[in-house]
Amino acid sequence: MESWSWPPQYDDGYFPPSGSRYWFPRRETMDPAEREQAILQRLREVMQYAYERAPFYREKWRAAGVVPADVRTLADFEQVPVVTKSELREAQARCEPFGDYLCVEDSEVMRVHGTSGTTGRPTAFAISRHDWRTIGNNHARIMWAMGLRPGDMVMIAAVFSLYMGSWGALAGSERLHCKSFPFGAGAAGMSARCAHWLALTKPAAFYGTPSYALYLAEVAREEGLDPRGFGLRIMFFSGEPGASVPATRERIEETYGARVIDCGTMGEMTPWMSAGGSFETRGLMLWQDIVYHEVCDPESYRRVPYGSRGTLVYTHLERTSQPMIRLASGDVSHWVEGPSACGRTYPVLPDGIYGRVDDMITVRGENVFPAAVDAVLNRIDGYGGEHRIIVSREAAMDELIVRVEAAQSISRDDWPGLESRVQAAVTRELGVRVKAEVVAPGTYPRTDFKARRVIDDRRLFDHLASRKQG
Amino acid sequence: MESWSWPPQYDDGYFPPSGSRYWFPRRETMDPAEREQAILQRLREVMQYAYERAPFYREKWRAAGVVPADVRTLADFEQVPVVTKSELREAQARCEPFGDYLCVEDSEVMRVHGTSGTTGRPTAFAISRHDWRTIGNNHARIMWAMGLRPGDMVMIAAVFSLYMGSWGALAGSERLHCKSFPFGAGAAGMSARCAHWLALTKPAAFYGTPSYALYLAEVAREEGLDPRGFGLRIMFFSGEPGASVPATRERIEETYGARVIDCGTMGEMTPWMSAGGSFETRGLMLWQDIVYHEVCDPESYRRVPYGSRGTLVYTHLERTSQPMIRLASGDVSHWVEGPSACGRTYPVLPDGIYGRVDDMITVRGENVFPAAVDAVLNRIDGYGGEHRIIVSREAAMDELIVRVEAAQSISRDDWPGLESRVQAAVTRELGVRVKAEVVAPGTYPRTDFKARRVIDDRRLFDHLASRKQG
Repeated sequence: MESWSWPPQYDDGYFPPSGSRYWFPRRETMDPAEREQAILQRLREVMQYAYERAPFYREKWRAAGVVPADVRTLADFEQVPVVTKSELREAQARCEPFGDYLCVEDSEVMRVHGTSGTTGRPTAFAISRHDWRTIGNNHARIMWAMGLRPGDMVMIAAVFSLYMGSWGALAGSERLHCKSFPFGAGAAGMSARCAHWLALTKPAAFYGTPSYALYLAEVAREEGLDPRGFGLRIMFFSGEPGASVPATRERIEETYGARVIDCGTMGEMTPWMSAGGSFETRGLMLWQDIVYHEVCDPESYRRVPYGSRGTLVYTHLERTSQPMIRLASGDVSHWVEGPSACGRTYPVLPDGIYGRVDDMITVRGENVFPAAVDAVLNRIDGYGGEHRIIVSREAAMDELIVRVEAAQSISRDDWPGLESRVQAAVTRELGVRVKAEVVAPGTYPRTDFKARRVIDDRRLFDHLASRKQG
Repeated sequence: MESWSWPPQYDDGYFPPSGSRYWFPRRETMDPAEREQAILQRLREVMQYAYERAPFYREKWRAAGVVPADVRTLADFEQVPVVTKSELREAQARCEPFGDYLCVEDSEVMRVHGTSGTTGRPTAFAISRHDWRTIGNNHARIMWAMGLRPGDMVMIAAVFSLYMGSWGALAGSERLHCKSFPFGAGAAGMSARCAHWLALTKPAAFYGTPSYALYLAEVAREEGLDPRGFGLRIMFFSGEPGASVPATRERIEETYGARVIDCGTMGEMTPWMSAGGSFETRGLMLWQDIVYHEVCDPESYRRVPYGSRGTLVYTHLERTSQPMIRLASGDVSHWVEGPSACGRTYPVLPDGIYGRVDDMITVRGENVFPAAVDAVLNRIDGYGGEHRIIVSREAAMDELIVRVEAAQSISRDDWPGLESRVQAAVTRELGVRVKAEVVAPGTYPRTDFKARRVIDDRRLFDHLASRKQG
C-alpha cells in the first residue's frame, strides 16, 4: 500500500500527478473494511513498539492485563485503557522533561513544544527528526485534499510558540512546496500589519482560528482594505469549532470570498490535521490511516455506532517519539460513515468537533456547547460579531445570559428588536430559556487566538467540572 | 575547498569530528590573502549570476558603467555602486511582490518574510528552498563555533514573524541537530511562561535580544526562579549591540552564569549570523566566505583600513534567490585583522556593530551612539536596568538628558548619589555634558524585542536624519 508501513517511511520527493484529486489514491479511497484490517495490524505494531520502549505503557497495560498480541480485532483494542492528560503530566513530573513514554533516544529529539499549562503543570512535546518528516508528509497530503498546490502562498496567522497549530500548518506547507509566509500573531499591532501583507502579497491560502479571521476582517476594514480584495482561495482553520459551524463558516466565506475548511484535533496528537475536511467535503474526515480515531462512550470508552455522539479517543499510527495510544481527548462529536463528497472512504464528523467535555455547560439539566450559541448568533442580522455567555445561579435555577454586541450598522433604536431575536433564536436552538442583552459594538476584546466566551458564575460549577474530567 | 562553490552545495549529513573546534577547518583558518583570492572569484560569479537574472542589477550597473568581468581585484569591487534599502522598496513597488532582483523562479520560493515596515512600505524577502538549506548550513557552522553541539537544547525566545532573527536561529539549530525549542516572544504572559519552561527543560543555549534576556531575568525572579538555575551554557544574541558591549555582556553573564556571544547583521542579509563571535572570541568575526563584509567610508563606499571606523557594506556569496550585492547597511563599526583567539583568520569587529548611521545622535557636534550610554549605565551600582535618552534644544544648545531607573535595592535617599554618578560617568564616556535624572524602578516598559530608548525632541533632527540617509 502506498508508503504505508511501521515505522512510516516517506519519500520527501513524492508528489501526485498535478491533476490528481488524491495524494495517495489507494489509501484514501480503499474499502473501509480492508483499511480496518490494515489499521489493526498497525495498532499491534505501534503497541508492541511502545511496550518495548515505554515503561509508561508497559506498566499501564500490565495493570490492565493487556498485552499487544492480544489485540486481534478493533473491538479488542477498545479494552486498552485510555490515557488521560493528567497521566501524561504525572509521567513528566516523574521523569523530566519528556516523561517515560518517550520512545526514542534523547538525541533524536528535534523539536520541543508543549501545552500552555494554563491549568497546571504544562506537558512537553518531544518530536523526533523522523516524526517531523512524517508530520510534514501527513499534513501535505491533507492540505493537498484541501486544494492547496505547490507554489501557492500560505499565510500562517497564528502564534508560533508552544502551540502546534501554526507549526503543523508550516510543516505541511513546506513539504507541499508552497510558499510559506509564517506571519504569526499575538503581538501588539500585528493584525493591522497582517492585513497589509495580505493585500500586498495576495496569498492563495490562510491558516488561523475562525475568530481571528473575523477579527482580522474588522481590522482590515479599519485600515481601508477589503478582505475580498486579498484574493484568498482557501482558508483552513483549527483550534475552534467555527469552521464546521455552518453560520460561522458562511460568514467567513462571505467576508473573504474564499472556501473555508476545518481541521484539527489536539497538540499531543500532531499530525493534528488527521481530522480534516477537503475542498469538496465539509466537516472533518477521519484520516484513519494516519491517526486512528474512535468516537466512544465517555464512560466505557467503547466505540459508539455511526450516527451517534461520543467523545474522541486518538491513537497515533505514524508517530515514533511520543506515540499516543488511546488518548482520551474530551472532544465531543458524532460520526457517520463515508464515503464523502470527495470520494474518500473515511468516517466523517459532519459537524466537526463541536465541543469538549470540559467546555460543555450544563444548564438546568441540559448540555449546552458554547459553539452552538456562536452558530445561532452568526445567522442573526444586526449581530456585531462578539458575545459572552454568562451562567449564574441567582436562586434555585441556573440562568443563562447571552450578551451580544450590536453591529455598527444598526441604530440604538433597533437594539430591543435585536434582543428579542437573539433571545428567541438561542432559546429555540438550545432548548433552554436564555436571557439576551445587547451591548455596544466593540465592547469585548477580539482575540487572535481561541475565543473564550463563557463566564460561569456558579460555585457549583467547579465541582461539576472536576467530576466531568474524571 | 570544503564545500565552497557557486551556487553552494552542502551535504546536509556532514558533521565535523566531535572534538573539532572548526566545522570547516580549512575555510575558517586559511591564509587571509588566499581567502581573498577565492572571494574575488566568488564575487565575479555572483555578479554574473545576478547580471543575467535581475533587471535591477543589470540596469543599476549599466548606469554606473560596471560589468561583472571588470572586477579583477577587491579594490575594483569597491567601484560597484551600493544598493540602498529605499532602492529595494522601489523595486518591489515596481515589480510586486518580490522586486526585479528575485533571481529564481517564483515556484522555487519557499519562505516569505520581510521588514517591519515601520518607516513606510515594507520589503518582502523571498527565500528559495535551496537558500533555506544554505542558511541552515551556514548558521549551523557558526553555532558550532559558539560551542553548540548536536543534542543541545536551544531555547529561541524572540518573536516568530517577519523578523529573521528567530527563524535563522531555528534553521541553524535544526541543521546542527540540536533540540530546538522555538518558544517565541511578544504575546502577553509569554515571559513568565518562558521562565518556567527554562526551569523545567534546562536548555543548553538561549537566543534572543540582550534587553529581553535582562527583562526575562527580572520576570523569572518575580516568579521565584533563579536565572542561574536554568543551567544555560551559551546565550547568543542579535538585534541589538548589547552582547558586544562589555558591561552589558558581563551583566548578562553574571545574571545567568552563561557565556554571552554576539552575532547578526540584518534581515536582508540572512544568513545574518555571518558576523558572529565564537566561544573563545568576543565581538563579531566576519565570516567572509559566507557574506563578504566591507567596512567603508560612508561617503565614498571604499574600504577603510583595518583599525578604522566606517559603515558596513554586505555582499552575499551563497544566496541565490535575492542576492544582495553591496547592500549599504548604515551599520557602524570598526574592524581589525584576525586571527582571533579561536584561531579563525577572519577580520573582526571587536566591539560588534555598535550603532547605525540612523541611530547616531549628533549632540553639539559630537556623534553619540545610544549603545555607549547603555554600556556605561550597566557598570553603575544602583542602576535599575532601563533608561531613556532625551535630546532636546531648549535654547541654542542641544541638551542631552539621561533618565535612569533606580534599582529596587537602593533607597530613595541614595537617588541623588546615583544621579551624580550617572552624570559624571556618561559625560566622561561620551565627551558631551549630559544631565542625569533618576526615576522610580519599573518606570519604563520592558521589551521582548529591540529596546528603543532615544527620544529626540529637536525639530532640526528630522532634517539631519534625512540628510544622513542620503
